Amino acid sequence: MSEDALVIFTPSGKRGRFAIGTPILQAARKLGVDLDSVCGGRGICSKCQISPGYGEFPKHGVTVEDDALSPWNAVEERYKSKRGMAPGRRLGCQATVMGDVVIDVPPESQVHKQVIRKSATQRDIVMDPASRKLFVEVAEPDMHNPSGDFERLKEALQAQWGVEDPLAGLDLMARLQTLLRKGEWKATVVLNKGNHDVRPRILDVKPGYDESGLYGLAIDLGSTTIAAHLCDLRDGAVLASSGLMNPQIRFGEDLMSRVSYAMMNPGGDVEMTRAVREAINSLAASIADEAKIDVKTIYEVVFVCNPVMHHLLLGIDPVELGQAPFALATSGSLSLDARDLDLSNINPAARVYVLPCIAGHVGADAAAVALSEEPGKSEEMVLIVDVGTNAEILLGNTSRVLACSSPTGPAFEGAQISSGQRAAPGAIERVEIDPVTKEPRFKVIGSDLWSTEPGFAEAIKTSGITGICGSGIIEAVAEMRMAGIVDQGGLIGGPDQVGTPRCIPYGRTHTYILHDASAEGGPKIMVTQGDIRAIQLAKAALYAGARLLMDEMGVEKVEKVTLAGAFGAHISPKHAMVLGMIPDVPLNKVISAGNAAGTGARIALCNVAARNAIEATVHEIHKVETAIEPRFQEHFVNASAIPNAVEAFPELAQIVTLPDVSFNTSGHGGGEGGRKRRRG
Amino acid sequence: MSEDALVIFTPSGKRGRFAIGTPILQAARKLGVDLDSVCGGRGICSKCQISPGYGEFPKHGVTVEDDALSPWNAVEERYKSKRGMAPGRRLGCQATVMGDVVIDVPPESQVHKQVIRKSATQRDIVMDPASRKLFVEVAEPDMHNPSGDFERLKEALQAQWGVEDPLAGLDLMARLQTLLRKGEWKATVVLNKGNHDVRPRILDVKPGYDESGLYGLAIDLGSTTIAAHLCDLRDGAVLASSGLMNPQIRFGEDLMSRVSYAMMNPGGDVEMTRAVREAINSLAASIADEAKIDVKTIYEVVFVCNPVMHHLLLGIDPVELGQAPFALATSGSLSLDARDLDLSNINPAARVYVLPCIAGHVGADAAAVALSEEPGKSEEMVLIVDVGTNAEILLGNTSRVLACSSPTGPAFEGAQISSGQRAAPGAIERVEIDPVTKEPRFKVIGSDLWSTEPGFAEAIKTSGITGICGSGIIEAVAEMRMAGIVDQGGLIGGPDQVGTPRCIPYGRTHTYILHDASAEGGPKIMVTQGDIRAIQLAKAALYAGARLLMDEMGVEKVEKVTLAGAFGAHISPKHAMVLGMIPDVPLNKVISAGNAAGTGARIALCNVAARNAIEATVHEIHKVETAIEPRFQEHFVNASAIPNAVEAFPELAQIVTLPDVSFNTSGHGGGEGGRKRRRG
Repeated sequence: MSEDALVIFTPSGKRGRFAIGTPILQAARKLGVDLDSVCGGRGICSKCQISPGYGEFPKHGVTVEDDALSPWNAVEERYKSKRGMAPGRRLGCQATVMGDVVIDVPPESQVHKQVIRKSATQRDIVMDPASRKLFVEVAEPDMHNPSGDFERLKEALQAQWGVEDPLAGLDLMARLQTLLRKGEWKATVVLNKGNHDVRPRILDVKPGYDESGLYGLAIDLGSTTIAAHLCDLRDGAVLASSGLMNPQIRFGEDLMSRVSYAMMNPGGDVEMTRAVREAINSLAASIADEAKIDVKTIYEVVFVCNPVMHHLLLGIDPVELGQAPFALATSGSLSLDARDLDLSNINPAARVYVLPCIAGHVGADAAAVALSEEPGKSEEMVLIVDVGTNAEILLGNTSRVLACSSPTGPAFEGAQISSGQRAAPGAIERVEIDPVTKEPRFKVIGSDLWSTEPGFAEAIKTSGITGICGSGIIEAVAEMRMAGIVDQGGLIGGPDQVGTPRCIPYGRTHTYILHDASAEGGPKIMVTQGDIRAIQLAKAALYAGARLLMDEMGVEKVEKVTLAGAFGAHISPKHAMVLGMIPDVPLNKVISAGNAAGTGARIALCNVAARNAIEATVHEIHKVETAIEPRFQEHFVNASAIPNAVEAFPELAQIVTLPDVSFNTSGHGGGEGGRKRRRG
Repeated sequence: MSEDALVIFTPSGKRGRFAIGTPILQAARKLGVDLDSVCGGRGICSKCQISPGYGEFPKHGVTVEDDALSPWNAVEERYKSKRGMAPGRRLGCQATVMGDVVIDVPPESQVHKQVIRKSATQRDIVMDPASRKLFVEVAEPDMHNPSGDFERLKEALQAQWGVEDPLAGLDLMARLQTLLRKGEWKATVVLNKGNHDVRPRILDVKPGYDESGLYGLAIDLGSTTIAAHLCDLRDGAVLASSGLMNPQIRFGEDLMSRVSYAMMNPGGDVEMTRAVREAINSLAASIADEAKIDVKTIYEVVFVCNPVMHHLLLGIDPVELGQAPFALATSGSLSLDARDLDLSNINPAARVYVLPCIAGHVGADAAAVALSEEPGKSEEMVLIVDVGTNAEILLGNTSRVLACSSPTGPAFEGAQISSGQRAAPGAIERVEIDPVTKEPRFKVIGSDLWSTEPGFAEAIKTSGITGICGSGIIEAVAEMRMAGIVDQGGLIGGPDQVGTPRCIPYGRTHTYILHDASAEGGPKIMVTQGDIRAIQLAKAALYAGARLLMDEMGVEKVEKVTLAGAFGAHISPKHAMVLGMIPDVPLNKVISAGNAAGTGARIALCNVAARNAIEATVHEIHKVETAIEPRFQEHFVNASAIPNAVEAFPELAQIVTLPDVSFNTSGHGGGEGGRKRRRG
């Protein structure tokens, strides 16, 4: 019989024979089993905990005896008494093979552990961050064999971790001698392995074995909101998610007004760059505070953003993005130092990764959506719409992916709507209108009750009813259409035409009163003809963009629609389809992906290979420029009708019958193609 | 007969057949002939000028007809009328092959032109700088194929010059769009190709075809002096050489006193770093001013320096260099950005290269000497001594190279000498003493006349006679030994012993009066017993270091001695050997290499391959640590005698007979081994 013993690892199923006395960690490394270790097998870090199995394993064809592993040793006893260990666990670097054994590697002991995401529709993230901590023992200086402390640190990283020729900044060089001596030639290195052609880099060195944290920020830098996730780079946990208003708003509400500001005001771009960088600095500080971590333990930042935000973040005048041919200064991904962006609160050696842009109107945010939603891996023809002030639209399947952006304007966010407001307590977010009585009921953010249900008044006492948010206005307009208050052209009928006193004359048009508290000194919340027009413009732009991609793809219908963006999560698929915002698909094929751009940023933060993947994907995505496509205008005019002047919506017709009303007494159609639109 | 014509290039001798109509530049590129071009063959830069030869070429076996090249074309006519062209020249990109032809590439049209150095003992520098200018035509942005301006610039560099994936800083990205449009999509790129594992980098972009300069600084950062050469990176010409005092002198005269300052004063290292960086900034400005170039056209800097200067330049506390085991923070070469060193006057994108250090006491200056003098390529066993406050010593031949440093102290620079002064007008630099009369004569910096010659008084009227410099004191002491005024132990004899009233009692010892103008209110310039002792200490340290390397090498004699360092150029070989500063060799085997460290810096600046070469060489040089070698002390004691207490100097004996005098009446020897020495 062989002197070697059989070692079988689960869940990987990898197996091999090893000499009696081989440490389990060493066996795992030999077999390529994913077993973590920061200290390199020195019994310090306890990352290599394993669960040996004993008894019969018919599936594997082995019987594991009670003495299949070496007895507990002093290192394990000390660790257990100091820190505690779950029952049945051993340290993989201390326990050695004594007989055939089955070893389970629990998820928390895997380097490439999966971060399970809540939604069933979304794939998990496999942890493989650019930055990790490595414990090393560095040779002491020797007069007879003189080399620098840094060179000996590099030798240790090479010999003990296979790290090839890392870079380090002068700041670290200046601290290195003190750090190594303080740790008595033992040190924990924060190493950034870089992505593709960027060399590995030593970001930090801590004396001895260091257990302080290692965090990253995934930032979705939007025109209106800067949203950040603080992630633990060791296990992918999101410790805090936080956001703040983009302070650039004071220079212009939407993208084009910011580009204009830069054009009209010399140095305006510099002002906006400074403002957004300061905001990111303060966001980093506040999110670290919220998570109760040291902001200096943030070693990585990933940014996704639209092209104008991208340029302003990088300190590039966005003026070229305001005019054809919408040339980006740079479209590729960027690997930067924190100091390049004046990110002074986080660790000074922190690395920044900015996702690539797809085109002058289709930014790194769209790239992040593609990374998160992977249209190129979908068997079904999927349309992905990231709804915001500007809509990013992706269409594709495994054969091909197209992208464009469309200037929806801020109506979907409740802006430019008479009673519009941001989604906040007090805002009407859901609406239903009785098709017979034309009476509405609604829900307000902060309460789950309909306005007609008992207890509603009590429930909303604090917030009041203050306005109507983006999802609320979409539902209101769709419900008005379904109830016959609005016709296909988008006209609101008069009180006689509709048969309700809620429709009242308003200037030369009509308006629908959703809620009137003016008698008690409260607000009168209406949907005006102007509001309908604003929604028509926005949804027509969105639909026209989608339709243009379908033309380019040569398809008449899509099989699935994914609504992305924080706002996308709140849109009612049925109402969106009644409006004709999105192409006609079965309702159960409309999926919400939440903040997919933010998720894409998190993926790029936690998995460095994903960066290479998205860089490759971006090159394969075919961009369609809406601004120069004549058919965009045609689709736009058709899509101004509700749901559409020429296209049938058969799937929609199966669940909703839209009243065949027309309030146009002047003979004009309802199209809005002649009105000026602005990007932004 | 073939349709192709034979094209022969001289001086390379490369030849090939090309289709009629092929431009000469294209033929040259096909054959790998070194023919310059910045504009890539567009008839703009005129760098590709060639000299066609006509008539019989028996050596090459061809006859070149008058119509072997295409007639002058409009591009050439325009260039000639605007800028002028030497007779017989053509533009290689315009002249095309019409028949067999012999083409001479004049030196100024070669990219890798040689920079001829004045001294016959020194090798030429082949131009191959890291930075060069490349003219490109960049594709205009296209909405249908969106990519960033930077990406299209990279594509142009790849297609037109074979440059792979260069980096660029955000500063350049921010300027790029304006620059490319200003040049109407033509641009001149300043490209740094990097060295070994560093990626190429776009340092600057100029609109259109740009002829502004491209310069580099080679800086020898010494303890006492910062010396810089301003080089044209296109042809290697030295436009200006300039130096200033290292302002760190106010923190300490020598290296060890600066290390002490850093140890005793918290933040002292930061102060010294700031001082030296400011000095380099002002040196860059003044040298650019002197050469009448824009300081922003300096795109590269190369530094050589000793380890303490190295650390203080980089912002690293040098305290570890003050104590065994003399550990460097980093010993490898460094490729940095100008901003890393706060070099704010030169181009902000400039790159900095710092040569590697050999050991904690043997710095990048010694590496530069090795690069310049190439002991590893010498068939003869050569000893190279870089004489300064600290002496760097290299010994070797093709088989092996050893290095050490030795703490000579500042005596060789005229410091710590009673009448010592820096080498400046008025300083005595050469001395002769009549062995019979013991009367001296001398020369003063600023005049070629001996002090005994007619007209001397007139010649030195402006400068006066103010003191004695390093080379002067060496000659004085050696001449005193040869004249029997000083004995082997270094004692100055009394007036009766020597037989001259110039030897007078001075405290408990004697002193020799070299020049006495005290009657006229001028100085009395003497060589005191203390001066002799200082020179003995310095030369004993130098010799002991050299002897230690000889022990390590296992040789009893060397075949050649090279004196490097600015001061080395002025040392008289004979006098150095009388003193026993250097090992005994035939006088014609003592060579002066001038400022070899500065030359090494220039080589690394002008030839990027030399950087890789010196990095490899540094690893092969074996370092000997004088501080811990017991034999160093023994050699030092022996070498305190003049020339040496135990070693014979047979080569010296053939040209000089040293008087066998002894002035020691107390029975003590002349050795100085017991006195405390300091490094520095």
